[in-house]
Amino acid sequence: MTKHMILNAFETNAPGFMPPGQWTHPQDESFNYTTLEHWAKLARLLERGKFDGIFLADVLGILDIYGGNADAALKAGAWTPAHDPMMLIPAMAMVTTNLGFGVTGNLSYEEPFLFARRMSTLDHLTGGRVGWNIVTGYLDSAAKALGRSAQLPHDERYVAAEEFMDVMYKLWEGSWEDGAVVRDREARMYADPAKVHTVHHHGKYYDMDAMHRCEPSPQRTPVLYQAGSSTAGRAFAAKHCECIFVAGTSQADARSISDDIRRRAAEAGRDPADIRIIIDGVVVVGETEAAAQALLAEHQRYLIPEGSLVMISAGMGVDLSKGDLDAPLGPVKSQANQSATEALTRRDDVWTPRRIANHLHAGRGATIVGSPTQVADEMEEWIDKAGIDGFNLSNGFRFRTMENFVDMVVPELQRRDVFKRDYAPGTLREKLRTKPGARLPESHPASGYRR
Amino acid sequence: MTKHMILNAFETNAPGFMPPGQWTHPQDESFNYTTLEHWAKLARLLERGKFDGIFLADVLGILDIYGGNADAALKAGAWTPAHDPMMLIPAMAMVTTNLGFGVTGNLSYEEPFLFARRMSTLDHLTGGRVGWNIVTGYLDSAAKALGRSAQLPHDERYVAAEEFMDVMYKLWEGSWEDGAVVRDREARMYADPAKVHTVHHHGKYYDMDAMHRCEPSPQRTPVLYQAGSSTAGRAFAAKHCECIFVAGTSQADARSISDDIRRRAAEAGRDPADIRIIIDGVVVVGETEAAAQALLAEHQRYLIPEGSLVMISAGMGVDLSKGDLDAPLGPVKSQANQSATEALTRRDDVWTPRRIANHLHAGRGATIVGSPTQVADEMEEWIDKAGIDGFNLSNGFRFRTMENFVDMVVPELQRRDVFKRDYAPGTLREKLRTKPGARLPESHPASGYRR
Repeated sequence: MTKHMILNAFETNAPGFMPPGQWTHPQDESFNYTTLEHWAKLARLLERGKFDGIFLADVLGILDIYGGNADAALKAGAWTPAHDPMMLIPAMAMVTTNLGFGVTGNLSYEEPFLFARRMSTLDHLTGGRVGWNIVTGYLDSAAKALGRSAQLPHDERYVAAEEFMDVMYKLWEGSWEDGAVVRDREARMYADPAKVHTVHHHGKYYDMDAMHRCEPSPQRTPVLYQAGSSTAGRAFAAKHCECIFVAGTSQADARSISDDIRRRAAEAGRDPADIRIIIDGVVVVGETEAAAQALLAEHQRYLIPEGSLVMISAGMGVDLSKGDLDAPLGPVKSQANQSATEALTRRDDVWTPRRIANHLHAGRGATIVGSPTQVADEMEEWIDKAGIDGFNLSNGFRFRTMENFVDMVVPELQRRDVFKRDYAPGTLREKLRTKPGARLPESHPASGYRR
Repeated sequence: MTKHMILNAFETNAPGFMPPGQWTHPQDESFNYTTLEHWAKLARLLERGKFDGIFLADVLGILDIYGGNADAALKAGAWTPAHDPMMLIPAMAMVTTNLGFGVTGNLSYEEPFLFARRMSTLDHLTGGRVGWNIVTGYLDSAAKALGRSAQLPHDERYVAAEEFMDVMYKLWEGSWEDGAVVRDREARMYADPAKVHTVHHHGKYYDMDAMHRCEPSPQRTPVLYQAGSSTAGRAFAAKHCECIFVAGTSQADARSISDDIRRRAAEAGRDPADIRIIIDGVVVVGETEAAAQALLAEHQRYLIPEGSLVMISAGMGVDLSKGDLDAPLGPVKSQANQSATEALTRRDDVWTPRRIANHLHAGRGATIVGSPTQVADEMEEWIDKAGIDGFNLSNGFRFRTMENFVDMVVPELQRRDVFKRDYAPGTLREKLRTKPGARLPESHPASGYRR
């Protein structure tokens, strides 16, 4: 059997995401993002299309780099407002049985004890379908919202992240042994105290003396995702993460990132094949190439260029409202760590603010336009040439993009046997790894925390 | 029309709650608490019974006062483990349209910015059906789980709580003006920056410079609940809260509390009728009185007395594993603030550890046993004599208690016109107040934060 590609829908709990401004289309349904039915409908559609998961991006801070304030973000609805993504999961899980849920959680501002409890609760409720996209943030506006004067410096954030992971593994893997939960009605024993342990952690950033408040969930540690492409970010990902999201507007760029990540994972003693690398992408598909091009033009018509610049300014930490719209960006020195930054500045001969503003995917990832066979061809080419495992597909026009993809592209991919016709059994981890075992393998550092 | 009583189901995201040990019954379904279907089934049942809401209790710390460790709590499954309650709400909201959701949130350990976002997100997703049960915690074990060496002293917790509320009102009521969200496709304007304001808060416990990350939800501020019965707790409740949960095993005790709360509310410039007072209760109903008594005996048979003592020890901050099982408790000097403490020690001539251990409701509130007409009589008597507005009913046997109540007691209460036959329209606040207006009234301090 050919190795099947992974397909995620790339979404966020906001009226607008990527490409920015698509909510201005008269038929767009983005305004319904505050309702459960909106998300239930999407979840059902994705499961019909055998999508592996929905990936819920999140950003805590307001996008206020562009122009030095939030005005442009608010006007364009560029990831502004942005509601809590976790709350969507129980509702989407109610109406699906196989779809996975990757949710972004910013460890810089979460209380480890409460965060671990929320994720374990979700893993229980979804029957083991939850993943955590680990981020450390990139906006000082988030730090100021959370009572800090500024973020930690970039590399120090990864020091804190290492310690946060340490605490998570202690709670998820070490606090409750297998067999701790007895549920013996006759003996009147729910759990065996001898097998439940208090975590004593006293580090640089975190202190804790507590038992995990949850009994072990199907996966214990949720599937670990990451999207940072800085050097510190890649080292972290190679050590901890199972799915890594990369940006990169060319296959060569994406290849250099994916090769580097797999090399680092092997150096960390992990099987490089255990790391699934997913590229951000946008697919515009029509019955014919001409229909797809017409749809692309429609997307462009509803793009808000300033919204693109708001998002990229925030990601790069550089105010693109200043200076020459047509000057190449050049290398950028930035605190920001969104993967878009490197993807753009690596190709500093190409990207100008104007080009970013008018680029459909705001410069982040693969853009694929064509008929179903053309799209399938190009997706196969990306998998092959970029050395990746799948796609994280932006839901551009929320009333049509995913439906078009499910109805037109998925059958073509299935016909070629490069995408599954049905879900594998088991938890999200088992589905993604296509290996048995709901829990992290022995080669993963989390296994060292087990008793 | 007679004033209708309020009915809440009293639950928690744990295998056992009150009365402790009922999961040992062979037919009990508590083990399913980790599944969405368990909660969806309960939500559908409660909506069929026209319940106003489900009240989700929570405690972050492990119950380790009894015996000085968690052993007894783990064995009895006495509120141990305890999973995140908030995650149940989106799923239960998916399968209901009128049921309200009161969820406990401990402000001592929540990040205000993130907590406000989660609650606003829930208020959006549920269409304005969310309430927040404000607690400040009562266990040092929670403090230690969250990186503190101990809790703040009791009254200082209410100082911090006042500041937390200040921050919440700034975000919920003041950050986004009415009319800030424009959603103008033609003008390409999602929100009007002139009407979205940054909260600048710099206080003793909290610092923040941020816009609320959510657009205004139906209720803005969720319905505010509280259950503390200490002096500081009552003053806080009288100022802020709309629903107040009281314990009290006699009608006279409950009356003295409810009178005091309404007096304090009037002193704070609020309409005492805006305060809904709800008593904790357990109803054991059978087709006949004899059948009810037989069911009560069955409950007693599956009670784990040590589990009761675990819960009351935690609530009182006193280790009831020591000393004489038959000695009256006497006045208790305690950091703990669970309303049970006062209800018990006020009647120190009656309560001994052994009596608590064997009391069905562990000494917290009203216990009503009988045929449907007897139960309805007694509920009416409580409403009248205790000066209360409704009941918070423990779901004792999760496979039967609520179903019995819905099938036997609700029709009798409806026949007497002391309970509604159908839901009023509108948000949870409008349903509970039976007055128009989804948002807090002008007489509430939150209104002062509006622009």
